[in-house]
Amino acid sequence: MRICVINPNTAAAMTEVIAAAARSVARPDCEIVAVTSTMGPESIESHYDEALAVPGLLRAIADNPGADGYLVACFGDPGLDAAREVADAPVLGIAEAAMHLAAPLGRTFSIVTTLDRTIGRAVDLVAHYGFAGQCGGVHACDIPVLELETNPATADILEKACSEALRTDGSDAIVLGCAGMADLAQRIGAAIDAPVIDGVAAGVGMLAALAAMGGRTGTASGEFRAPPRKRYSGALQDFEIS
Amino acid sequence: MRICVINPNTAAAMTEVIAAAARSVARPDCEIVAVTSTMGPESIESHYDEALAVPGLLRAIADNPGADGYLVACFGDPGLDAAREVADAPVLGIAEAAMHLAAPLGRTFSIVTTLDRTIGRAVDLVAHYGFAGQCGGVHACDIPVLELETNPATADILEKACSEALRTDGSDAIVLGCAGMADLAQRIGAAIDAPVIDGVAAGVGMLAALAAMGGRTGTASGEFRAPPRKRYSGALQDFEIS
Amino acid sequence: MRICVINPNTAAAMTEVIAAAARSVARPDCEIVAVTSTMGPESIESHYDEALAVPGLLRAIADNPGADGYLVACFGDPGLDAAREVADAPVLGIAEAAMHLAAPLGRTFSIVTTLDRTIGRAVDLVAHYGFAGQCGGVHACDIPVLELETNPATADILEKACSEALRTDGSDAIVLGCAGMADLAQRIGAAIDAPVIDGVAAGVGMLAALAAMGGRTGTASGEFRAPPRKRYSGALQDFEIS
Amino acid sequence: MRICVINPNTAAAMTEVIAAAARSVARPDCEIVAVTSTMGPESIESHYDEALAVPGLLRAIADNPGADGYLVACFGDPGLDAAREVADAPVLGIAEAAMHLAAPLGRTFSIVTTLDRTIGRAVDLVAHYGFAGQCGGVHACDIPVLELETNPATADILEKACSEALRTDGSDAIVLGCAGMADLAQRIGAAIDAPVIDGVAAGVGMLAALAAMGGRTGTASGEFRAPPRKRYSGALQDFEIS
Amino acid sequence: MRICVINPNTAAAMTEVIAAAARSVARPDCEIVAVTSTMGPESIESHYDEALAVPGLLRAIADNPGADGYLVACFGDPGLDAAREVADAPVLGIAEAAMHLAAPLGRTFSIVTTLDRTIGRAVDLVAHYGFAGQCGGVHACDIPVLELETNPATADILEKACSEALRTDGSDAIVLGCAGMADLAQRIGAAIDAPVIDGVAAGVGMLAALAAMGGRTGTASGEFRAPPRKRYSGALQDFEIS
Amino acid sequence: MRICVINPNTAAAMTEVIAAAARSVARPDCEIVAVTSTMGPESIESHYDEALAVPGLLRAIADNPGADGYLVACFGDPGLDAAREVADAPVLGIAEAAMHLAAPLGRTFSIVTTLDRTIGRAVDLVAHYGFAGQCGGVHACDIPVLELETNPATADILEKACSEALRTDGSDAIVLGCAGMADLAQRIGAAIDAPVIDGVAAGVGMLAALAAMGGRTGTASGEFRAPPRKRYSGALQDFEIS
Repeated sequence: MRICVINPNTAAAMTEVIAAAARSVARPDCEIVAVTSTMGPESIESHYDEALAVPGLLRAIADNPGADGYLVACFGDPGLDAAREVADAPVLGIAEAAMHLAAPLGRTFSIVTTLDRTIGRAVDLVAHYGFAGQCGGVHACDIPVLELETNPATADILEKACSEALRTDGSDAIVLGCAGMADLAQRIGAAIDAPVIDGVAAGVGMLAALAAMGGRTGTASGEFRAPPRKRYSGALQDFEIS
Repeated sequence: MRICVINPNTAAAMTEVIAAAARSVARPDCEIVAVTSTMGPESIESHYDEALAVPGLLRAIADNPGADGYLVACFGDPGLDAAREVADAPVLGIAEAAMHLAAPLGRTFSIVTTLDRTIGRAVDLVAHYGFAGQCGGVHACDIPVLELETNPATADILEKACSEALRTDGSDAIVLGCAGMADLAQRIGAAIDAPVIDGVAAGVGMLAALAAMGGRTGTASGEFRAPPRKRYSGALQDFEIS
Repeated sequence: MRICVINPNTAAAMTEVIAAAARSVARPDCEIVAVTSTMGPESIESHYDEALAVPGLLRAIADNPGADGYLVACFGDPGLDAAREVADAPVLGIAEAAMHLAAPLGRTFSIVTTLDRTIGRAVDLVAHYGFAGQCGGVHACDIPVLELETNPATADILEKACSEALRTDGSDAIVLGCAGMADLAQRIGAAIDAPVIDGVAAGVGMLAALAAMGGRTGTASGEFRAPPRKRYSGALQDFEIS
Repeated sequence: MRICVINPNTAAAMTEVIAAAARSVARPDCEIVAVTSTMGPESIESHYDEALAVPGLLRAIADNPGADGYLVACFGDPGLDAAREVADAPVLGIAEAAMHLAAPLGRTFSIVTTLDRTIGRAVDLVAHYGFAGQCGGVHACDIPVLELETNPATADILEKACSEALRTDGSDAIVLGCAGMADLAQRIGAAIDAPVIDGVAAGVGMLAALAAMGGRTGTASGEFRAPPRKRYSGALQDFEIS
Repeated sequence: MRICVINPNTAAAMTEVIAAAARSVARPDCEIVAVTSTMGPESIESHYDEALAVPGLLRAIADNPGADGYLVACFGDPGLDAAREVADAPVLGIAEAAMHLAAPLGRTFSIVTTLDRTIGRAVDLVAHYGFAGQCGGVHACDIPVLELETNPATADILEKACSEALRTDGSDAIVLGCAGMADLAQRIGAAIDAPVIDGVAAGVGMLAALAAMGGRTGTASGEFRAPPRKRYSGALQDFEIS
Repeated sequence: MRICVINPNTAAAMTEVIAAAARSVARPDCEIVAVTSTMGPESIESHYDEALAVPGLLRAIADNPGADGYLVACFGDPGLDAAREVADAPVLGIAEAAMHLAAPLGRTFSIVTTLDRTIGRAVDLVAHYGFAGQCGGVHACDIPVLELETNPATADILEKACSEALRTDGSDAIVLGCAGMADLAQRIGAAIDAPVIDGVAAGVGMLAALAAMGGRTGTASGEFRAPPRKRYSGALQDFEIS
């Protein structure tokens, strides 16, 4: 099977981290294709960034047909419903996947994200996916996305934030709130002695499970059928479906 | 005061309908500036269309600074949070506005939208804004957006759908689920003897109310501060905030 | 258009504050009629007061027919459903109006009310209107209603309470929890650099929006039709509908 | 022990039905004092009626001090919070009591009320008390309150409505939605072979349970302490607490 | 009437405490039959204990037919739905009963349980019964079940925990979270000047109320009909219904 | 890796179906160990059966230490929390797993279970896991568990029930509500052209994903630590943890 992991940030270095995390958990018979978006923001740290990362994500899906699953590697899960309309296999976001796998590991999980301005989006996703009773809280570690890899103190700061989140919320598990943290899950989990879920690994695992079952996005209600064709114009003219 | 009404569909004829609805309810001292998006889908009927309408919406806000309020005239309320980060005045979506004004008019309201594939998005918005207890149901009239103005049977079909929605849901009011229906609210309300709320008129009224109070988007939590600056690339390079 | 603002407290000085707040935001073509209840408690600070303020409110509506909207200027929103059955135009409470206008201004709003014994009622209204996810918390400033105008420290105390509420709840906006605070919204908003919503101004704005659209209370479900006629007796005999 | 059952309708014949139902289930050592309100509507069938029944209810409590519990015998549970502030023993409404006793008897219960205009209030109470997951639906039998005793077809009509409610909602139990139906619970329960809960009997049982435990309304949060004293005026001047 | 109170812990001393609490509130015409489980854990302090207490509970019900009500005297309410299928009268758990009787006594109640590992189960029950809006919080006093009777400091520790819970949660009432605390409700209530509800007393009161009304578990939906007969094997062979 | 799939029904033929479904989706490097419970009911079709299946399930976990994950193959997810306290690897129920994997495949999923008396338990699980907004409805096909394999019409009846559920609920996906249906997911999915999720396959996939990430049940809150040791007696004496 083949799983396509899309980094909707245009920062290629981040894609390397994501790809490595994906490959470290993939089934022996699963190929990971890691793709970097070719348009939009270098990193996603605002609603503005997130909205403008979606065209690049949709372009990446269109440019990589035939996979058995698509993973959107940004914790805001941008463009998920649109992606489901156009992809020919299941699509998951890493926030969604991380919460689904963290929920059964204890009473509640806590989310630790990057900047505090991203907390709101995480809160919305928690409610949207139905995990309001399973999420004990959302916290920020105050490290910008692109500094996660370059700041030598990242692991220590994040470990401290995760440890405090567990205690404050009375939670049993941690969900890491950014694809750029994917390489730190094991280390932090060992340090704080608690399950720490990275959404990239979670997403690859869930997509493999779905692929093995022949899972696909359902279209019976009509919502996720292919979009009606129509004229697109201006800078987005190329998104017209021919 | 000046209110900027943005049609995120690129269909200019639809903007005319929207502008007329906005002007018909505006305060005597309120100027309505109606703007058509210059990029993206001609009409919004899928998650794909909606996602790709957001860049044009954000461009329109940037190109029309200084208004006392911005109204996003598409019932999917696309790009609302991103718009709030960059606009210097309150931003409302027409779904949001319509629900806020319909809620106090009875026990529950029913939403009547265009194609049934758009029902899911309306259901999400109902939950997101907190109106799950106030919305009796979401229904489709099965008319595509661009046919609303050209199909001579639109008013009759929509009236019938509204009437059935009231009865099926036991509701007291109707919310029209598309900006392109804005010219029909009065007629249908008279025909079915019930309050029928169009989001364009509702949005203009709420924005005027906010403007008169000096309302603005709050930034205390950090979520809605101006987005961090960063490199944008590819077809969306121009969205980089300088 | 004409909007009737009813103070269900019998304290006439409070009506002056309310009327001024209403007129300061009203459309140029909107007449504000401010009415003081003629029976019941001087101020509303308990469930007991609130219940006994309702007859005076209903009497005031009956005595002022023909308005385009009625605003109940007490943050407990007393008698709203009863008022809707007998008024010939939309009826709003100031708690309801304030929450509807505050919700779109940020992630969450915080409510600051008078005595802590009134917090429970505000919590009930938050849930009833569907704003449990939008309200970050309800706080008291511990000033009795009638002291709001006479205590020279009111503005400072209230400003401090609002500032703390924002920080404690991580909110973006404030809702003032008493009609008697209506004159302080602008000043406090400037002081704490956040949107501060007064329900009187919010209610006038929403009612004007509804009036411009021809809005009215819906009667299709039967709940808000005129009440069945019947015998009334005792001290309330005059409330029998003839 | 002594339990005071207050009929907030001024119809004395209805008080007889209520008193009989209360006495039929009371503990051997429990005295039932049945009181008819002396002011307000003859029967309660609208929000207007309900609001105007509250002063008479509060007067009846003040006139009957020293009971071990007070039951408000109207399914709208009017004035409950106000009554709790002034009564020196626990206060229950019959809707509240009926739902608390019906919930443990099956998966869900269905409510059958009088006129369909009263459905909305029942829906509000269901949500307010937390029984949204336990209530399968609210239905009307279309018999006005005062006809319940005089219409010879009442029992048959009500039995049919209850039977249909069970089937439509897939419920296991019925809650009767009016104090005037108190004499029919046993007969209907036998006819439809399902538990049928009358709120008057339920309330007497719950109040006796609370009285035996020394239960009382808690005042720690401040909400239910005695109301602050203040000036009352007009027709309600006598409600001023001296 | 006869109410059967079953202690699903096998500790007989605890049954004495429970029986005394039950008898102290029972109607004069109500016989209390107190039964100790004959198999499973001595005390229930984990999900493991709770699961393994259920067979003994079901055996106790089968061995004591003909009661007018059955009370499961463990705050985890183990085996309630199974018990309802096989008992010929209503079945209540003490958590369920305590919450139903505490809810009407104030804005919110707080639960104080034994070990903090039992908090999660209480949180689940709060949600399951619909009391999420009525329960202000769940707290532990850190005393193991079997030490409740033997530790001379129990009353002081528990009183302190209850007092702190009231203040932390802003609650009006306390629910004691273990059958072994049944003898302390009166003393703690007096000490902290707030209603303190013990589930054993609450359950006896609610079951008596139901018995007086002829209440029984409803079977219309099919869920609570007698279980289908089938082969049982191994150590649980005797549970096969003949 | 090794995943232990436990059939808490004592019917060995059913274990064969379950094991085959598990192996058909397992990673190439994953060994499936399928275990049949040795005590309790032959099939689980009531709350009574379910409660009495838990001891056998807990025994099976104790008898099969060292797996990387445990799957409880009964759609009522019996004994899950108890199993988590004693297992040294993550534990999933098939209802839980199926819902987690079905949720991302569309707007809502519908559950189709065996007898209608089991609908209530499924409804409880939907709420407990947070999927109330993702589950469109729960339906029964009216085939007893042990007839699923022997009744030649099973596939046709189930296919029809799934098809009707999709249409009635407006859902996009189906969740099969019994481990005994595991062999029919592919066939029914093809027939109704919609994703059909079997919990056994879903559970194996999720457990493999968790195992690859080093997932484990979190113990930070204390709830899922090993149970306190204590005396067990009677027929369950062997469950005492030494």
